[in-house]
Amino acid sequence: MIPTKEEILETHERIKPFIHNTPIMKSSFINSYLGCEILFKCENFQKVGAFKFRGASNTVLSLTKEELKNGVATHSSGNHAAAISLAAKMMNSKAYIVMPHTAPVIKRKAVEGYGAEIIFSEPTLEDREKHLNHVVERTNAVFVHPFNNYKVIAGQATCAKEIFDEYSDLDFILTPVGGGGLLSGTSLSAKYFSPGTKVIGCEPAGADDAFRSIRDNKIYPSVNPKTIADGLLTSLGEKTFAIIKENVSRIFIVQEESIISAMRLIWERMKIIVEPSAAVPLAVIIENKDFFANKKIAIILSGGNVDVENLPF
Amino acid sequence: MIPTKEEILETHERIKPFIHNTPIMKSSFINSYLGCEILFKCENFQKVGAFKFRGASNTVLSLTKEELKNGVATHSSGNHAAAISLAAKMMNSKAYIVMPHTAPVIKRKAVEGYGAEIIFSEPTLEDREKHLNHVVERTNAVFVHPFNNYKVIAGQATCAKEIFDEYSDLDFILTPVGGGGLLSGTSLSAKYFSPGTKVIGCEPAGADDAFRSIRDNKIYPSVNPKTIADGLLTSLGEKTFAIIKENVSRIFIVQEESIISAMRLIWERMKIIVEPSAAVPLAVIIENKDFFANKKIAIILSGGNVDVENLPF
Repeated sequence: MIPTKEEILETHERIKPFIHNTPIMKSSFINSYLGCEILFKCENFQKVGAFKFRGASNTVLSLTKEELKNGVATHSSGNHAAAISLAAKMMNSKAYIVMPHTAPVIKRKAVEGYGAEIIFSEPTLEDREKHLNHVVERTNAVFVHPFNNYKVIAGQATCAKEIFDEYSDLDFILTPVGGGGLLSGTSLSAKYFSPGTKVIGCEPAGADDAFRSIRDNKIYPSVNPKTIADGLLTSLGEKTFAIIKENVSRIFIVQEESIISAMRLIWERMKIIVEPSAAVPLAVIIENKDFFANKKIAIILSGGNVDVENLPF
Repeated sequence: MIPTKEEILETHERIKPFIHNTPIMKSSFINSYLGCEILFKCENFQKVGAFKFRGASNTVLSLTKEELKNGVATHSSGNHAAAISLAAKMMNSKAYIVMPHTAPVIKRKAVEGYGAEIIFSEPTLEDREKHLNHVVERTNAVFVHPFNNYKVIAGQATCAKEIFDEYSDLDFILTPVGGGGLLSGTSLSAKYFSPGTKVIGCEPAGADDAFRSIRDNKIYPSVNPKTIADGLLTSLGEKTFAIIKENVSRIFIVQEESIISAMRLIWERMKIIVEPSAAVPLAVIIENKDFFANKKIAIILSGGNVDVENLPF
């Protein structure tokens, strides 16, 4: 069932002792440059460097003792893998991560650092799922989907809730959209805690499956996405799709150059490190200045995990 | 006269409405990696991206109306130039910045962005001073030295004061040392507000003039310094030297590799952008783990102005 207001409140109480209530930052330069007022919610400072720890910790904390004994499993090479690994470690449980053998060493090391067991697959959906099924069969671990899971969605919803706890007068809240876990959770929190705030999904034009899916009212798979925003390559799930369709005001798509400009603006003016996916909402404002003129806007900076040896500038 | 306790308190009241009381951040990873407890005071988030705005704003705010009419002048291509330019703009005064014509375009643009007038010189001390004297003669602007000035030192002292306002039990406070404005101000604040805290200066081995000056009790000029820490190339002034000699416990020097490792650790684990000079104190802890084991330590992250197109990793 779609998380209710009470469930999101309970979720926040459940995970509060384990997550950071991340700071909200502002930049007077960016505000005057873009002609609006932007609040940046810094999930790049969240544990494991991304909002994903909210959903992962909520899921793991909700498991029974019996379930925890067998551990949790997922397929991901990104922030969800690190988040599940740390959440499992925190509960003295075990994490099994299916990861393509092509994943960057830095991501593998992050997961290993949290004590997870890595199972390597070919970089295809088919082989990944085969290995995941196999590990679940072998271990009885609980599979935690990166986004198409109500516990995960309720966890991601707590980020926007923290913003609304501090600000009651926002015109817009913007998040990136990949699988839709953050966007769907944010839209539920807006509905429950700040109904006057419009929710906007932000997507690279080179991976515009969510934009097309909402437009045409059917889930398109993400085929050969081409974008620097490596956290936004997946397509929506049926759970996130249904919530987004109902509660999100609009999805904007943006060009790669705008994503890089936005990322650089955040690095140079705010002195914080965000990954390309996190810069997509600011890119939307850069490309649509008139639409957002004089508005009060929250942006969720979704994560800060980048390879500093391989930057786009 | 050396700033008294009362003067530092007055200075803080004077500049408070214009500066950021910057956040203090921690990293559980870095603490467990180095076996001590470190508080990072984030002056990379200060206006103009560096602590220098404290001293500059104190100096400019202390000028008479008559003096403000003629403006302020300095020679610098770095953070002090930007700080003086913004402070002058803030008071509707005028800034004249003597800068070598070899200075990076990015630094020139920062100063121009604050409306300062740039006077280009050859990149020699002699030509720089000639141009400075010339502009002061022409305009009657007040010359504000980057560090050998008690108003500047009192301004820089407010940074450590903000730390001691929050923490009363620090074993050490570490700052980088170039001309010694930040280190001398910090040592005065420690003496007045936290006498149990030892003050340590941190210097690249490739620019170790402060280390040798304190050891031999005479100011050595900084001759051909070779370090990535481009904010620490200058030698001490007689005012900063006298205060440091009296109040600083020790100066440590560190290797370039340690500075780069420390910088990368801060970027990757804390997700914030610091310039190489700001990473020098953490490099000192990396090279001297045993000395700092189990201690509670504040580090002033002095600034965050780096060219993201030209990084050492």
